[in-house]
Amino acid sequence: MLFRQLFDQDTWTYTYLIADPQTKEAALVDPVLEQVERDYQLINELGLTLRYCLETHVHADHITGTGKLRELTNCEGIVPENAQVACASGVIKNGEVLRLGDVTIDAIATPGHTDSHNAYLVNGTHLLTGDSLFIRGCGRTDFQSGDSGLMYDVVTQHLFNLPDETLVYPGHDYKGHSVSTIGEEKRFNPRFLGRDRANFIEFMKNLNLPNPKKIMEAVPANQSCGNVPATV
Amino acid sequence: MLFRQLFDQDTWTYTYLIADPQTKEAALVDPVLEQVERDYQLINELGLTLRYCLETHVHADHITGTGKLRELTNCEGIVPENAQVACASGVIKNGEVLRLGDVTIDAIATPGHTDSHNAYLVNGTHLLTGDSLFIRGCGRTDFQSGDSGLMYDVVTQHLFNLPDETLVYPGHDYKGHSVSTIGEEKRFNPRFLGRDRANFIEFMKNLNLPNPKKIMEAVPANQSCGNVPATV
Repeated sequence: MLFRQLFDQDTWTYTYLIADPQTKEAALVDPVLEQVERDYQLINELGLTLRYCLETHVHADHITGTGKLRELTNCEGIVPENAQVACASGVIKNGEVLRLGDVTIDAIATPGHTDSHNAYLVNGTHLLTGDSLFIRGCGRTDFQSGDSGLMYDVVTQHLFNLPDETLVYPGHDYKGHSVSTIGEEKRFNPRFLGRDRANFIEFMKNLNLPNPKKIMEAVPANQSCGNVPATV
Repeated sequence: MLFRQLFDQDTWTYTYLIADPQTKEAALVDPVLEQVERDYQLINELGLTLRYCLETHVHADHITGTGKLRELTNCEGIVPENAQVACASGVIKNGEVLRLGDVTIDAIATPGHTDSHNAYLVNGTHLLTGDSLFIRGCGRTDFQSGDSGLMYDVVTQHLFNLPDETLVYPGHDYKGHSVSTIGEEKRFNPRFLGRDRANFIEFMKNLNLPNPKKIMEAVPANQSCGNVPATV
């Protein structure tokens, strides 16, 4: 498998490029609008055919590059079930699998940060967690129908039941970590370690985070596949 | 092998943590002073013993974390030959090998960015290039006895002779790339592609880059293992 982690410095967002080296079929997970030129160039240099742009969820902190990449490459823009993105090419539900040649991408419904959210398990080894589980953290749950109880259940009952050696690749990292493992997060993630469900909900309720800078612009734009609505 | 890429957002610097999962012996390559707490915590969580902090060169854009990590862990601070770091625990010359259990770290002298510079080839597969070869770029050569001709020779005659599938992990990236391969850089690096030595030297001469913000502070501090000289 070809696997590349790409970073957007402005919004601390990780985008992932996944491809089958034989068939050259590729997918981008969570592309960022401002990085489309970089990603498109890399795809072309590597001789890949972009088949899918996959979203983990409707982002509030950056605008997706999917719309622009769909224009450039004719790829499909795929979103989780109930993501309310009318322009999406299709949805992928919990338990469904996308294939790029011999590479498998399993969708795992992971609501909590938002009410519609998928993690993607690539080849059974690389778990792209979006804004559910972070390295030593987790996504916030205080807007877009976020739900702390659901986040707790999804992480502790589903993600933490994956094999310990599963690699965790988050949608963001704010400290410069790039990868972790399920085993590490079970042992060291301070959001979950030693907390029961009620305690976690209480903790998340008191985070008092400021809204993302781009939320007013990003959510409607992402519901339009990254096509920023024209203002009159 | 345990291999972690870590990022310092302020100076766009990559630090690498390498360890043998059996013996738990570890090395950090190019640690950053401001990230020592993060790196030290990760080393402790993973149950590792830090044996070495390795520098690719005396940095001009950030202050090394080696001095502080040496105090915390009693590790050795190792620098390239002729690096003029009197306080270093030792030097590693071209062709010498460090071992962490079964993990090998081969030093490859790669002067050009600075007159004393090593790349480190880990387990024969992961090439940490420091500020020699970057992803689609290379380190600047206009201070600290930099030499464009040497940079050209080192990259085209030594690094580009490694197997195409060798993974390239740079000391910095300014576009959000995390890894490349020797094969990719031979085919797509615009600094070297289609340029002869004279053309490369001319190109580098005309870059007209501003000095790194921290150069006046960083170089003397790094020559003191990261211990910032007290000002009177």
